[in-house]
Amino acid sequence: MRQSQLPNFVRKEFPKDEESYNAKILVRAGFIDKLMAGAYSYLPLGLRVLEKIENIVKEEMNALGAFEIRMPVLSPKENWEKTGRWKSFDALFKVIARDKKEYALGPTHEEIIIPLSQRAVFSYKDLPFSLYQIQTKFRDEARVKSGLLRGKEFLMKDLYSFHADAKDLDHFYEKVSRAYFGIFKKLGLDAWRVEASGGTFSKYSHEFQVFIEDGEDEVVCCPHCRFARNKEMFSSKQTGNCPVCKSSLEVAQASEVGNVFKLGTNYSGPFSLKYRDKNGQEKNVVMGCYGIGISRLMGVLAEVFHDKDGLLWPSSLAPFQAHLLSVFGSDAAVNKKIGKQAEEAYKKLAAAGVEVLFDDRKNKTAGEKLVESDLIGIPVRLVVSQKTGDKIEFKERSKEKTQLVDFSFIKNYLDR
Amino acid sequence: MRQSQLPNFVRKEFPKDEESYNAKILVRAGFIDKLMAGAYSYLPLGLRVLEKIENIVKEEMNALGAFEIRMPVLSPKENWEKTGRWKSFDALFKVIARDKKEYALGPTHEEIIIPLSQRAVFSYKDLPFSLYQIQTKFRDEARVKSGLLRGKEFLMKDLYSFHADAKDLDHFYEKVSRAYFGIFKKLGLDAWRVEASGGTFSKYSHEFQVFIEDGEDEVVCCPHCRFARNKEMFSSKQTGNCPVCKSSLEVAQASEVGNVFKLGTNYSGPFSLKYRDKNGQEKNVVMGCYGIGISRLMGVLAEVFHDKDGLLWPSSLAPFQAHLLSVFGSDAAVNKKIGKQAEEAYKKLAAAGVEVLFDDRKNKTAGEKLVESDLIGIPVRLVVSQKTGDKIEFKERSKEKTQLVDFSFIKNYLDR
Repeated sequence: MRQSQLPNFVRKEFPKDEESYNAKILVRAGFIDKLMAGAYSYLPLGLRVLEKIENIVKEEMNALGAFEIRMPVLSPKENWEKTGRWKSFDALFKVIARDKKEYALGPTHEEIIIPLSQRAVFSYKDLPFSLYQIQTKFRDEARVKSGLLRGKEFLMKDLYSFHADAKDLDHFYEKVSRAYFGIFKKLGLDAWRVEASGGTFSKYSHEFQVFIEDGEDEVVCCPHCRFARNKEMFSSKQTGNCPVCKSSLEVAQASEVGNVFKLGTNYSGPFSLKYRDKNGQEKNVVMGCYGIGISRLMGVLAEVFHDKDGLLWPSSLAPFQAHLLSVFGSDAAVNKKIGKQAEEAYKKLAAAGVEVLFDDRKNKTAGEKLVESDLIGIPVRLVVSQKTGDKIEFKERSKEKTQLVDFSFIKNYLDR
Repeated sequence: MRQSQLPNFVRKEFPKDEESYNAKILVRAGFIDKLMAGAYSYLPLGLRVLEKIENIVKEEMNALGAFEIRMPVLSPKENWEKTGRWKSFDALFKVIARDKKEYALGPTHEEIIIPLSQRAVFSYKDLPFSLYQIQTKFRDEARVKSGLLRGKEFLMKDLYSFHADAKDLDHFYEKVSRAYFGIFKKLGLDAWRVEASGGTFSKYSHEFQVFIEDGEDEVVCCPHCRFARNKEMFSSKQTGNCPVCKSSLEVAQASEVGNVFKLGTNYSGPFSLKYRDKNGQEKNVVMGCYGIGISRLMGVLAEVFHDKDGLLWPSSLAPFQAHLLSVFGSDAAVNKKIGKQAEEAYKKLAAAGVEVLFDDRKNKTAGEKLVESDLIGIPVRLVVSQKTGDKIEFKERSKEKTQLVDFSFIKNYLDR
């Protein structure tokens, strides 16, 4: 992608209307744009990161044997009345249409996926199965802050599983937990599985939390054995020592990037989602639901992967693998040579299948280009300038050292 | 994908609550599910088709040099008041939040993309550029009918272009039109470019229309020279002969799958989206907008590609390239051989990179499997049964002829 063609959303200063670091840096580096509190546009660089997160999540969902679907945003009031959530779900956005009918903007999709699944569930032979979607969700939050960590509108992966009994659900629940650890590892994040309140069917649910200063949750954790529980589960006098290994517990801010929840028959009941077992008896389907905050993850990643100069994307998530810069001086003849050499490198990298962002802009100084490159945070920076001769200057974003290399070095490095 | 794992959404009968053919067949064949009038879920097979349409559209947008972004669904009332559309846009869905603030659910995104683009536009050197998104759109339609052809909620590609002057817009407008013809050709559709009303900046806009019986529009067209104009543009007494070649005009129902529109400065004006020209003078940015109805296209494709037995997807859009069926009889030993042979064929096809749907279900008869296969409409059907011996029965969905073939024949056919 050529930066001379790309509208330049990178800013010289941090935005003044943001408090959280993730929003400040992602806006300044041109990844997102704030439309209003709690709602952001994903710009070309940001959308590339978002899609890489999506693809990592999709791969693991497909490996679980889950099937991808896409449900509507709007859903009828009646569905939400069946579960009592039209009244009880505080943050439900409600819409009144011209015909006076009322709709919810989906913050979660139990009320939609259960009647949908009814068409495919008759006998125990039709179970188990699981369906997921990656979709924009809505919450009428009273306070929105923390940039991508808490919005009125955000991207979620939500998975729903359907089982004949609690044992099969338990088995799948642990399988999803393992898949979640796999996803967060691929994203370069150290996620903890944290006990949280479980509702009526199960004592606990589990949240996957990443410890960051700006996190919206407080987590009580044991650094020794990795026991962790949401602070909300403790009364004010409790905490103290780890219930597992007796080491002392710590409390830290964290951001919830995923959760797994045993719904049991709490939602299948109201919708009469039933199946016939081997003896022909009708039973309620047993369900689980499992979320991952895709856009929140982008915020968490920005909180984790940065230094004083800007972002530092892990290569699996970076919008591009390499950032190629042509740096021009004042000598027209030399500039022509630099331009030609950089063009050749760009074409060779693209032909080799490397995702490369090419800063081919002629009206930017070396200083401007280098500052922007650090802000954007692509893992490898390649500079062609008067100083580099027939070679290319290679630098990893996370290191200080630069070296003059030829094309085969770059290719080998990126293929490693 | 194994059908034994996939929840079976295929139905024995057409749904009774649908009038249009596209909704009837897509629901019956398990591609979509109706949540309510005007809002459908995309089931695993349907989402695969939708994503193939998306990818064809994205390829052509990227080839135009447009950059993909993703804007929010919710947007603040103030933005819509600036252009007067908070009042004038009849089908605008409005939401009142808990804090009493009002938002629109985006039916189009001029009110969002213009303030967003302002951050990247200062001088004529920053122009031209174009940005697009593929996103769920909302319209508070009084009447929703025609299945995927007109919904409250639907998937659109919307592209916006930004230019220094009308000449540059004109040039890009024709380039987009050519890209649109390319897209519809890849989708196997004969789309006509139809003159439609153009607003204040341009006499005409253009719609891309596909002639189908259930189409929501009436188009006056000349089969001789392909002149076409939306019927709305004629007074009741007009029509008659073609203004270009004088042949007689015809009137037919059509569905609008795309449109291109010169906005000029109509929207950049209210938002003061300006740039400085070569002489340092401030001027309004000149804009165009260009839509493609992604989910509507799925409906149009179902209207165009079917026969009495079901769907007939072109291979570029089919959810899978091949549908492999194991057909079991009453002899357990023979069934074991059939099962093994079909498993081997599935693994070989998958290893060869073929997208294959495998009907490995043991509780379905030959008749049930063949009827479902015709409904789903994958271009190639492969049957392993007692009759096929060591070979595989090969049949194209669009033809009657079956033949016994070996694996290399199938591979060569699919690679062709």
